[in-house]
Parts: sequence; C-alpha cells; structure tokens
Amino acid sequence: MLKQYYQDKIKVIDETLDRMLMRQQALPPVIYDAMRYSLFAGGKRLRPILLMAAADAVGAKGTNYLPVACGLEMIHTYSLIHDDLPAMDNDDYRRGKLTNHKVFGEGMAILAGDALLTQAFEFILSQPGVEAQILVAVTREIAAAAGPAGMVGGQVVDLFSEGKRLDYDTLRYMHQAKTGALFKAALRAGGMLAGASEQHITALTEYAEQFGLAFQITDDILDVTGTQAEIGKPVGSDERNDKATYVTLYSLDTAGQLAAQAVGAAHAALNGFGDEAAILRQMVDSLLSRTN
Amino acid sequence: MLKQYYQDKIKVIDETLDRMLMRQQALPPVIYDAMRYSLFAGGKRLRPILLMAAADAVGAKGTNYLPVACGLEMIHTYSLIHDDLPAMDNDDYRRGKLTNHKVFGEGMAILAGDALLTQAFEFILSQPGVEAQILVAVTREIAAAAGPAGMVGGQVVDLFSEGKRLDYDTLRYMHQAKTGALFKAALRAGGMLAGASEQHITALTEYAEQFGLAFQITDDILDVTGTQAEIGKPVGSDERNDKATYVTLYSLDTAGQLAAQAVGAAHAALNGFGDEAAILRQMVDSLLSRTN
Repeated sequence: MLKQYYQDKIKVIDETLDRMLMRQQALPPVIYDAMRYSLFAGGKRLRPILLMAAADAVGAKGTNYLPVACGLEMIHTYSLIHDDLPAMDNDDYRRGKLTNHKVFGEGMAILAGDALLTQAFEFILSQPGVEAQILVAVTREIAAAAGPAGMVGGQVVDLFSEGKRLDYDTLRYMHQAKTGALFKAALRAGGMLAGASEQHITALTEYAEQFGLAFQITDDILDVTGTQAEIGKPVGSDERNDKATYVTLYSLDTAGQLAAQAVGAAHAALNGFGDEAAILRQMVDSLLSRTN
Repeated sequence: MLKQYYQDKIKVIDETLDRMLMRQQALPPVIYDAMRYSLFAGGKRLRPILLMAAADAVGAKGTNYLPVACGLEMIHTYSLIHDDLPAMDNDDYRRGKLTNHKVFGEGMAILAGDALLTQAFEFILSQPGVEAQILVAVTREIAAAAGPAGMVGGQVVDLFSEGKRLDYDTLRYMHQAKTGALFKAALRAGGMLAGASEQHITALTEYAEQFGLAFQITDDILDVTGTQAEIGKPVGSDERNDKATYVTLYSLDTAGQLAAQAVGAAHAALNGFGDEAAILRQMVDSLLSRTN
C-alpha cells in the first residue's frame, strides 16, 4: 500500500515540477538546465509526500496541494546544491551522480540554488483553492523553517563542527534545524492547508518531530550498514570525516533502539487519528528498514 | 525636501531591519553577524524607499509597509553577497568595505545570503494591515522579480558575458532582469499594498521601467566619471574588465542623453499624479546628479 502511494505521488510531483519549471520560457536556458538537473536527480520526494499524507490524514485530498508540496521539494533541492559546494561539504557525488557544481560550475550552482529557493516561494504562493490568510501563514512557516533559525542555521552548525566531536545537545539541535524543521513545516502545512483542527495540527507536529529524529538516526545507521550502491556515497564517510553521529556517539545497537523509540512515539502522536493516517504510520515504520 | 525624506526613511528602515534581525534569538550568532554585516554596510535603501514613495504617491502612508519594504532590502543585500563571491564577480570590496566572504569566509557568505533571502519572505509575509489576498499577490511578484526570470536570470547573463562585448539587446535584458525587475516590484508593491487603482499601478510600472533604465545608465557613467571614494570601488573597472556598458557601447555624451530621456519618460508616466508624487519625481531627477 505504501509502495503504491509513493509511486502515485512521485508521479504527480514529478509531473508538476516538470510543468512548473517548463512554464518559465524567459529563463536563460542554462540556469533552467542546472535547476532541473538537481531537481530530477532521483530525490525521494519525502517532504512533498509528507505534506500530502498529512492532508490525507485529516480527511482532505493531498494532491490538491501540489504547488506548496513541490515548493518544499525545490527548497530541499536548493539546500542540497549549496551544501555540496566546495566552500561547504565539497562533495563530488550525490545519489551516485555528479553534484551540481561539478557539472555546471560553482557560480552556476550557487545561482541554481538561489533560483530554486526564490521560485519555490512563487510557486507556493500560487496554490489555488486555499484561503489567502491560511496560505500566508503556511508560507511564513515554511520560510521560517528554511531560514537562519531552521535549515540554514543547522547548516551553519554543521559547517563549524567539521572535525569536531559534537555533544548530544548540539547534534540534536543541528539535525532539528537542518532537517527536522522542514519536515515539521511539511506536516503542519499539510494540516493547515486542509483546514485541520488545532488538536490535529499539534499531533502532526509531534509526529513530525519523532519522524525527523527517526530519520536522522537511521541515516546515521545507514552510513555504516548500507552499501555504496544503496546510499549513493562511500560507506563510512561520517566515521572517516570524524563526524559526530548517533552511531559514533552511542553504538549501532543503541542507535537502533533510539530509532525504534522515536517510531513508537510517532505512532503514539497519531492516536487520535483513524485509518486516514495509515500512510503516515507506514511512512515512519519504513524508516526502520530504509536502504537509502 | 528629498534629502529630508531620505533621512527620515533610512532611519525607520534601519531601525526596522535592526529590530527584525534582533528578534531571532535562536540564530547561531555568527550567521547573524554575517547577515548584519552586509545589511548595515552603507546601502542606499533605494528599493524600500521606492516602495514607500509609491505608496505615498497614491495617497497612502509608505511607512505602514515597512516589513515588505525591508524584505526588499534583504533580498537586494543577499544578491550583492552572492554576486561578490569568488565563483561570481570575485570582488574584495564593496562600498569601500571588505565583501562578506573576505570577512566571514566563503561558506558563511553563501549561507548569509541564503538566510537573508529566506528570512526576507518571512518578514514580507508578516506585513500587518493588508488584505491577505493582496499580500499573497505582492509577495508572488517579488519572488518572480528576484527569481530566474528576474534578478537571478540577469546574474546568469552577467556571469556568462564576462570578457564578451554584449550587444544592446542583451545588455538591456541583463539590466532589466538583474536590477530593473526588483525596482519594478518595489514600485508596484507600494501601489498594490496601498490599494491603488489599476491605472495608477500601470503608471508606477512605467515609471519603474524608466527609473531602472536611468539608474543603470548613470551607474555606467559614474564608473567613468566618479571617484573611488564616491563609488567605493576602483574607477574605470568596467572598462578594464572589458564589460559592456552604456558608455563603452555608445559614448559618455550619448549615454548622458539616454539617461535624460529616461528621466523625462519617468516624469511623463507620472502625469496623472498630483503633488503626492513629488518624491518619486525628485528621486528620478536625482539620478542625473548621482555621485554614488
């Protein structure tokens, strides 16, 4: 059921992104190529799917919110392009493909990221069928989650912690800001766009926090237990880069237990939901068996 | 009168930016320092002042729209930080001060730009006292003007034209996209936020186009006739960089005439306005005697 849901949603997300990025005829073609290169480089579309699954979970139709959902994917993609730059993580490969700056050059990669981030807001604000006041609130939350108190702030901590062993609190803050904030914005946006009750939105927020934690821990585990083909980068790179992770900070076993705990807490957060939340439940379960 | 208007407006703009950037206690301090460094590096605040003057021109109170106005300044500042990067124009100085990456490093400068751009949208969408539907429309226009069909697109052309002599059409496109689009968004936003008539907004749009043209031509003239102290960068750098400008493409005399023509056309665009548009008229006039 989850597999089918993913397939269906990825199809409409990719179609929407393709159409949205095609509409701009005035673009100098090369920036358009650079934006599309990373946007269609095999992303899992997790953030737009979380948004739609949250809307589904409160009885609305997730696919009604594709402009906002796809905007989140554009913001996520911009952050990957900038993170990979030589002045940041200096990565040559992502998901087994050359990174944006290796293909288009550093200047163009910076601009492709800037363009994706900016255009994301344009697309998000083109969302039809939603009260303008709600759209303003949703977009503000997304901007806050992506900004210096969220994603950018997490990347700042990451940049400054290279070669340092972070303590647990700093590690937790970094991940909450860098990855967790946008997950949370995705799930809350799904609820808000669908007109969910305060109670449901609070539950989605709690689910998002546990989902983000489980996602990060399993990411760290995968860096040790995955294969290069699966994860698209050399295995054990965190250890070699002396990066603080849940595995280096604890052990593989303890990290696995912490992930399972977070998944349990995510389920508990959804207690007040019926079968409409089945996908959200399966999504967080699937983190425990992720291979990429 | 213009001088007093500028002084008053710059004061409230700077106070607002200071307050807006202070509110974020959760920021890792260094990103906050990097953002503020460029935001308070002596900018002329032209875009927020244009927005407020447009609102004044249609009988509203420009200072009511400080969140949107200051958001424009943050977007402008982010674009300067990224333009100065080694992978772009590779400038060490701007307005006589070290550029952001020379002070904070390249990675932090990229992130400071990203943070300013993202937070700009958060602040713009916090604008009170405006119908949500209008705020959505205004923010969408700003995003479109700053994105790949606007500012970023202009920078792409700039990046690719280094060492090439652009023809007139390409030069015009580059400036319209890189600088003109955000001027236009500023003036239209001022009108839209103030609830101006369609006719007035069309007139402000035409004024904006002529203002942008006059601004760019006088910028090119200044690169030849200004002093380093005035313009904050070495005189004649366009010529040395073999950059196409209105002066290299025509002559100093012809460029001066084209600038005067644009100023005349900007005045004509404001024919339907009364004394409330006095500041807009003085602003475009002042371009002909600019020294920075």
